[in-house]
Amino acid sequence: MNRFMDLADFSREEILDLLALAQSLKDHPQPRALAGKILGLVFFNSSLRTLASFQAGMARLGGSSFVITPGQGTWQLETRLNAIMDGAAAEHVREGIPVLASYCDALGVRAFADFKNLQNDLDEKFFKMIDGLCDKPLINMESAMNHPCQALADWRTLDELHVPQHAKFVLSWVYHPKALPLAVPAATLHMAAMRGMEVVVARPEGFALPAEVMAKARAAAATAGGSVTETSDRATAMKGAEVLYAKEWGSPLHYGDAEADARLRAGLNDWCVGERWFTDALPDARLMHCLPVRRNVAVADEVLDGPRAVVRREALNRLVVQMAVLHRLLA
Amino acid sequence: MNRFMDLADFSREEILDLLALAQSLKDHPQPRALAGKILGLVFFNSSLRTLASFQAGMARLGGSSFVITPGQGTWQLETRLNAIMDGAAAEHVREGIPVLASYCDALGVRAFADFKNLQNDLDEKFFKMIDGLCDKPLINMESAMNHPCQALADWRTLDELHVPQHAKFVLSWVYHPKALPLAVPAATLHMAAMRGMEVVVARPEGFALPAEVMAKARAAAATAGGSVTETSDRATAMKGAEVLYAKEWGSPLHYGDAEADARLRAGLNDWCVGERWFTDALPDARLMHCLPVRRNVAVADEVLDGPRAVVRREALNRLVVQMAVLHRLLA
Amino acid sequence: MNRFMDLADFSREEILDLLALAQSLKDHPQPRALAGKILGLVFFNSSLRTLASFQAGMARLGGSSFVITPGQGTWQLETRLNAIMDGAAAEHVREGIPVLASYCDALGVRAFADFKNLQNDLDEKFFKMIDGLCDKPLINMESAMNHPCQALADWRTLDELHVPQHAKFVLSWVYHPKALPLAVPAATLHMAAMRGMEVVVARPEGFALPAEVMAKARAAAATAGGSVTETSDRATAMKGAEVLYAKEWGSPLHYGDAEADARLRAGLNDWCVGERWFTDALPDARLMHCLPVRRNVAVADEVLDGPRAVVRREALNRLVVQMAVLHRLLA
Repeated sequence: MNRFMDLADFSREEILDLLALAQSLKDHPQPRALAGKILGLVFFNSSLRTLASFQAGMARLGGSSFVITPGQGTWQLETRLNAIMDGAAAEHVREGIPVLASYCDALGVRAFADFKNLQNDLDEKFFKMIDGLCDKPLINMESAMNHPCQALADWRTLDELHVPQHAKFVLSWVYHPKALPLAVPAATLHMAAMRGMEVVVARPEGFALPAEVMAKARAAAATAGGSVTETSDRATAMKGAEVLYAKEWGSPLHYGDAEADARLRAGLNDWCVGERWFTDALPDARLMHCLPVRRNVAVADEVLDGPRAVVRREALNRLVVQMAVLHRLLA
Repeated sequence: MNRFMDLADFSREEILDLLALAQSLKDHPQPRALAGKILGLVFFNSSLRTLASFQAGMARLGGSSFVITPGQGTWQLETRLNAIMDGAAAEHVREGIPVLASYCDALGVRAFADFKNLQNDLDEKFFKMIDGLCDKPLINMESAMNHPCQALADWRTLDELHVPQHAKFVLSWVYHPKALPLAVPAATLHMAAMRGMEVVVARPEGFALPAEVMAKARAAAATAGGSVTETSDRATAMKGAEVLYAKEWGSPLHYGDAEADARLRAGLNDWCVGERWFTDALPDARLMHCLPVRRNVAVADEVLDGPRAVVRREALNRLVVQMAVLHRLLA
Repeated sequence: MNRFMDLADFSREEILDLLALAQSLKDHPQPRALAGKILGLVFFNSSLRTLASFQAGMARLGGSSFVITPGQGTWQLETRLNAIMDGAAAEHVREGIPVLASYCDALGVRAFADFKNLQNDLDEKFFKMIDGLCDKPLINMESAMNHPCQALADWRTLDELHVPQHAKFVLSWVYHPKALPLAVPAATLHMAAMRGMEVVVARPEGFALPAEVMAKARAAAATAGGSVTETSDRATAMKGAEVLYAKEWGSPLHYGDAEADARLRAGLNDWCVGERWFTDALPDARLMHCLPVRRNVAVADEVLDGPRAVVRREALNRLVVQMAVLHRLLA
C-alpha cells in the first residue's frame, strides 16, 4: 500500500482488514513499529484533529513528524501549472512537494476544494497533481472531494456502536453561515454506501450533491447490498433512522459563487439539528458529525450535549484508524 | 497527581517534594521515563518559554508533544457556553478540548484573562470549564489569575540563590504601555507568601491587587510564618529588600477598560526599574522577572545586564521544574 | 566544532571531512547518534526546506527539535541594542536567545538581512549579536550575507554530479519582482571559489556584488587554484559553462531603497533562464537554484522540468549535509 487517497480505491475486504489492524493496534500497542520513520504533514488549510491525531499517531508508533503550513511560517505555494509566478506565491508545488517528500518516509497533504470550477474539483485536479509529484507514500488528509481518514474513522465508529450493516443512515445538510466544500458529504455518503447501509441524503432544494458523487455512492451500495436515495423531505428521511450524520455544504448549483449560494441558504437556518428532528427516528438514534461543528447553528447544544452525540468518539477514532493507515504504509 | 493548576492546591511539603524531584531529575536524568507518552499543548495566547520548555522537557524525558494554536493553523475556538456560533469561531472548546485530550496523555493549556469581567477572571471561569472538559492530566500554562509553572520555577530560583525563607521579597508594579493580566503578580505573590517570605507589594495608587488575591496570599503567609503587606511608597518597600520581583499589570479598578487604565498609568513611566531603586536594598539584592520584559520601559538595561538580574536562571528553571511536573503527572 | 556559521571558518580539508561524514551517515545510518539531544530552531523569516530538513535530520539521528517563529505564535523580538521597547516587540533577543539556548543542545537561527544599511549587513551585525548570546552550538540557517547549509549542500551536489573541481561555474543574476538579500549569491560564490572552480558572476549593470563579497571569494579561489571574474555579458559568461547557478538579488547600489531598485530592475525580466541561455554551454550543463524559485519569472518551466535542473537534488542534499553538521556539533 502506497496511497491512502479514497476508500473507493480499496475493496470492502481491504477496508475491513484496515479496521481490524486498527483494533489490533489498540489492543496490542506497537510503540516501536515506526521507529526512525518520519511523516511530513502539509496543511494548505487549517486543522485541529488532523494535525494533532497524525502527530500523536506517529509518536504512538515510535515515529516522528514535521508540519509545513503554507502561508504561516512558510510562504504560499503556487498550484497552477505554467503560472508566471509574479504574485504572492514564492514557490511552486512542483518543487515544494517533491522536496518535502524527499525529507520523509510518507507525506500527508490537506488541500480543500479550490471552489471555482466544480468539474475540476470533482476530478481532484489538484490532488492528482500532488499525487504525481510525490514518490513516497501519500495520505489524503482532505481534498476537494474526499476525506478518507474521516470516512474510515466513521466506519469504525458505526461498527463500535453495533449499528447494523443495513441500518438506515441519513446524511443531512445542515445550516452554516457560508458555503463549505463537498469533501465530507461525498466521503461520508460513499462510506455508508460501501458499508451496505440504507442511505438517504436529506437536503433542501438546490443542495443536491453532484450526479457524479451520487453515482459513485450508488455503485458502492450496489456492490455492498445497500441503497442510496435522496429527498428534500427531512421528516420522511428521518423515519426509522438509526444514524443522522449532519454536515454543512455549499450548493453545487452555485459552486464558487458565494453570493448566489448565500441567497439560496438564507432562511434555511431551521436546518439546525434539534431533538425534534428525532421524533420518528429509532429511539437510540445517533448524531454523527465530523467536527468542527457550529453549535446552535448546525447542531443545537441539546443534541451535542445529549446521549445521541457520538462526535467525540468519531474524533478519537481518527487517531485509531490513522495509526492503522500509517502502519500499513510504513511498517 | 492529575492536575497542576495552582500551587495552592498543594501543601508546602508537596511543593518541596516537587522541587526535590526537579533537582533529582537534573542530577540523575531519566531520558526514558516518559517514553511513548504524548503531551498536547494548546496555546490560546502567544508563547516563547512555555512552548519551548514544555517541548524540550517532554523530549528530555523521552516523550513527545504536539502544539495547537487556535487562530494560527487552527481555527478560533468558541469559549462561551450556549453561544450561537455564527461568528469567527468554527469550533467550541466543548468539542475541541475533549478531542485533543483523547489524543494525548496530558494536556497543557494557556488561556490568558478574558479581561472583561474581573470576578469571572478571579473565579477562573474559563479554566474551570477546560478542567471539566479534560479527562487527562491537565497543566495550567497560564490562566486568568495563575501561572503555577512560573511560580514553581521562581521558588526554585530563590532556593538556588539561597534566599532565606523569611527574607524581604518586594513584588513591584512596573510600567508597560498597556494593561496586562494579573496572572503572574497573583501567582508570584502567593508563591512568595507560601514560601514564608516577608512580602511587600509596591504599586502606584489605583493598581492594588484585588482583595481576593491579597487574602489568598495572606492565608498562605500565615501558614508559612511569613507576611504580606502593600504600599505605594516604593522607597520604603525597597528598604532591606533581598529580592525585587518586577511585574507589569493592569488596574483592577478599570478592569477591561483600556482607556481608563491608560489614563491612570500615564505619567507612571518612572516605574521602570533602575539601579537607583536598590539604594536601600541589601547589597546583593536580586532582580527577578518572569519575562518577556520590555527593556528600558519596565526594567533598564543597566539592571538586566548587571549582576542583580537572575531572569535567565528563572527561565531555565521553567524547564527544570516542569520536567518534575510532567514526571509526577505521567511517569 | 561549536559553530556552523560560514564555510570560510573552515579549511578546505575540514569541509571535505564534513562532506565525507555526510556520505558516511547516508551509507551507514546512525539512528540513535543524537538520542536525547534537542535542537532549537528560531525562524525570524519564513522557511520550507530549512524547517523540514532540520526537523527530519534530527529525527533521523534519534534527536528531537522545537520551533519558535517570532511573530507567529511567539511575539516579535526586539533586536536593537539599547532600544526603549515601547513598540510591538515584547521581548529582546538578549533575553530570548539565551533562554532558548538553555532549553536545547544546539540552536539554529534564521535571520535575513535587515536591508537598511549595507555595511551592517556585510558585517553580520545581527548574527554576531546572536553568536554572542548563545552558549550552545549555533547553526546559521541563513543570515544577512551567508547561507552555509545551502553552500555545503550545493558543494555536495557538484561532487555527486562529478563536476570537475576546475569546471566553469556561472553564478547568474535572474529576475525577481523585488529586491532579495545577498546571502545566497555571496555564499554560493564563495563556495564555488573555495571548491576551486572557474567562477564567473553574470549580472546586469548595477547588480555587481559588493567589493567585500568579491574579495572574499577571490581569496578563497586563490587558495584553491580557481578564479573569480564578473561580467554583464551573459552570453560570453555562458560559453563553456558546466553549471549555471541562477539567483535573484537586489542592487547593492540601492540597498534598502525598494523604489530605486525597482527602477533599476524594470525591463530586466529577460533575465529569466530559458533553454536559449545554454546555446554555448557544455551539452550537459546543469541548472542549479537554492529554491524557492519563481517559475517563468526567474527560471522557465522548460528548464526546471528538463534534464538540466538539479534543484530537487540540491534540496535533498540540504538534509544530507545538515545531518553531518548536527552530528559534528552534537554527537
